[in-house]
Amino acid sequence: MTSPALQTALAYHRAWTGKDLDTAVAYLADDVVCDAPAGRLEGVAAYREFLAPFAERFLIRAEMIAAFGDDTTALLMYDAETVPAESAPAAECVTVRDGRIVYNRFVFDRTPFDEFRRRQAPVRP
Amino acid sequence: MTSPALQTALAYHRAWTGKDLDTAVAYLADDVVCDAPAGRLEGVAAYREFLAPFAERFLIRAEMIAAFGDDTTALLMYDAETVPAESAPAAECVTVRDGRIVYNRFVFDRTPFDEFRRRQAPVRP
Repeated sequence: MTSPALQTALAYHRAWTGKDLDTAVAYLADDVVCDAPAGRLEGVAAYREFLAPFAERFLIRAEMIAAFGDDTTALLMYDAETVPAESAPAAECVTVRDGRIVYNRFVFDRTPFDEFRRRQAPVRP
Repeated sequence: MTSPALQTALAYHRAWTGKDLDTAVAYLADDVVCDAPAGRLEGVAAYREFLAPFAERFLIRAEMIAAFGDDTTALLMYDAETVPAESAPAAECVTVRDGRIVYNRFVFDRTPFDEFRRRQAPVRP
């Protein structure tokens, strides 16, 4: 494996899908930007807040489908077995600078997660 | 570019995002299987029916974010400017055999498309 960006992306991914958010966020630049389905996240604190419920409440296990990279970019697709959906695949395209992820385009289907949250929400009287 | 799978994937992708579905489906195996957010599609007719509304009604233009491949697999991520959403990124991971796509794992967020359909639906009396 000769892509330094892919090495960083895989280490980050292994950590967060292993529910080790401290290690995962250590691979993120402080001013990381993530374009996620619900909008843009700026900074490592916002990123962690986005990842935490997924990693801690929803994810059962992740399995890599494909992973490629070059000097600065890595592209991952993986399937995720989650509480809301047996299969909730996602793709992340990260830009890496000096061993840290500075940008991520994060693609997944929000539908099963939103439906799950609606089902969990208390019914208003 | 040395990946034959990527060449096929890019030709298919260029065709369908260029709204040329005849050319696009010519890159699909007759018994292609596609795992899309709403479920599994089997066969080229079902695949075309899935792609057609997106290509013909929703898509304004697509722009590649990243594209990688090896002998048998290609992984694309692209942003799509669409009628329902200014930015509706998607990722496709295709398996290619003998120059045809035999499998695609297609990831995108259904939310803006479902919301658009709900807004367009006639209000029931």
